[in-house]
Amino acid sequence: MGSAAVRESTHFGIDGYYPLMAADEGMIGMAFTNARPSMAPTFGVDPLLGTNPIAFGAPSDEPFPFLYDAATSITQRGKIEVLDRALKPTPAGWVIDRQGKTATDTKAILDGLKKKENAFVPLGGIGETLGGHKGYGLATMVEILSASLQSGMFLRALSGFNDDGTPRPHRLGHFFMAIDIEHFVPLSEFKKTTGDILRRLRNSTVAPDEEKIYTAGEKEWLKEKEIRQYGVPVNSNLQKNLLIMKEELGLDSYNFPF
Amino acid sequence: MGSAAVRESTHFGIDGYYPLMAADEGMIGMAFTNARPSMAPTFGVDPLLGTNPIAFGAPSDEPFPFLYDAATSITQRGKIEVLDRALKPTPAGWVIDRQGKTATDTKAILDGLKKKENAFVPLGGIGETLGGHKGYGLATMVEILSASLQSGMFLRALSGFNDDGTPRPHRLGHFFMAIDIEHFVPLSEFKKTTGDILRRLRNSTVAPDEEKIYTAGEKEWLKEKEIRQYGVPVNSNLQKNLLIMKEELGLDSYNFPF
Repeated sequence: MGSAAVRESTHFGIDGYYPLMAADEGMIGMAFTNARPSMAPTFGVDPLLGTNPIAFGAPSDEPFPFLYDAATSITQRGKIEVLDRALKPTPAGWVIDRQGKTATDTKAILDGLKKKENAFVPLGGIGETLGGHKGYGLATMVEILSASLQSGMFLRALSGFNDDGTPRPHRLGHFFMAIDIEHFVPLSEFKKTTGDILRRLRNSTVAPDEEKIYTAGEKEWLKEKEIRQYGVPVNSNLQKNLLIMKEELGLDSYNFPF
Repeated sequence: MGSAAVRESTHFGIDGYYPLMAADEGMIGMAFTNARPSMAPTFGVDPLLGTNPIAFGAPSDEPFPFLYDAATSITQRGKIEVLDRALKPTPAGWVIDRQGKTATDTKAILDGLKKKENAFVPLGGIGETLGGHKGYGLATMVEILSASLQSGMFLRALSGFNDDGTPRPHRLGHFFMAIDIEHFVPLSEFKKTTGDILRRLRNSTVAPDEEKIYTAGEKEWLKEKEIRQYGVPVNSNLQKNLLIMKEELGLDSYNFPF
């Protein structure tokens, strides 16, 4: 097994990309990163922790690996931006205000996140009743793995801004691990056990109101298959713009200028 | 760094005990274990996964380490038993029935868990709205680490019962890791960074309705201090029984027969 701590970094893209590299080589991979401050600790209101994701990949005997990649907060800014464009409220429990109460006004939240007047809620929700302290604890674990092993910056210092509001580098930290499975069991056995676990979960009884039980990485794999077959979907605004570019300006989408 | 997979085991006690051993030696420790089936996958209703805890310990410059130890389900059977003794309902969102709906009748739940008619909900709640698929994904990660690296039993096979209802060994699996911090940074630097992260979190703004922000392992450390000073608390029933034993049977609590 091996590991590496990375310092003075910036947003490294998809957290799950790195465990996927390990899984493709017949290994278990894990990747952790801190991020700009946006999540409040349980019982607190200051946005201090990043969305601090955990990613874990393991090969299976199926056409795609088990690939977990998720923030330790319930949600992140990108989803609030999507709700804003759709003119929808933010679901209760995702974001808190300075009183520690849930905030649902999407436009106000986008503004409040910038001003540190809103904060994301840890996985498990507000308070301890549904386990919010667990998401908070996992986020802290990710912060320690990402910062302490390289004596790096953490929490508020990762905002990307100086106290006077001028921008500065984010200086994020990451931590990566890979475990060579064959030091434990033959790779084929590991893949079979893992595949059996995943199949057993997916083939169990589905709740009456639901359609299907997924395992982590499956939805993304299904989406990739769809996109490879049908191409990258574009939304109606972009389709309209492409049509205008083509019909009015004579530009073909193939040399669309971005 | 080193790791070990354990097979053919049973309940190993406190998951956090093992990372604590690592932290006491100036290392990061992690411990994972599967457990008897009780948690349903997101969108499913069968109790298949165990409460599958994650434990993580890291030394800091404070009198106690950062010590995270939590199930990847919202709760576990012990808490339902406590609610039963207190004649209290189970909080909504902890447990589901065969319809995938929340169950709150504590006595019925204790019976339903045995009959596989109730199941625990993953950290993040029912469905995906508040991130239940994340707790489910983490539980699956723990199942893979605990079973696949030793070609062991998993999910329903860990029930401790044969199909005919006769008991059999649990055959749980565990996975342990330790990381020697000094291969990355001097231990004193790691401890300082980690302590700074924890202090910064605890000293941030507390929500108006709350008293204090904790970091993982702090509550347990405070409790240990209290118990070392005042002794192990006993509940009123036990106190009453001790009194009866002493006054009516002449038994002193110091030689209480258990």
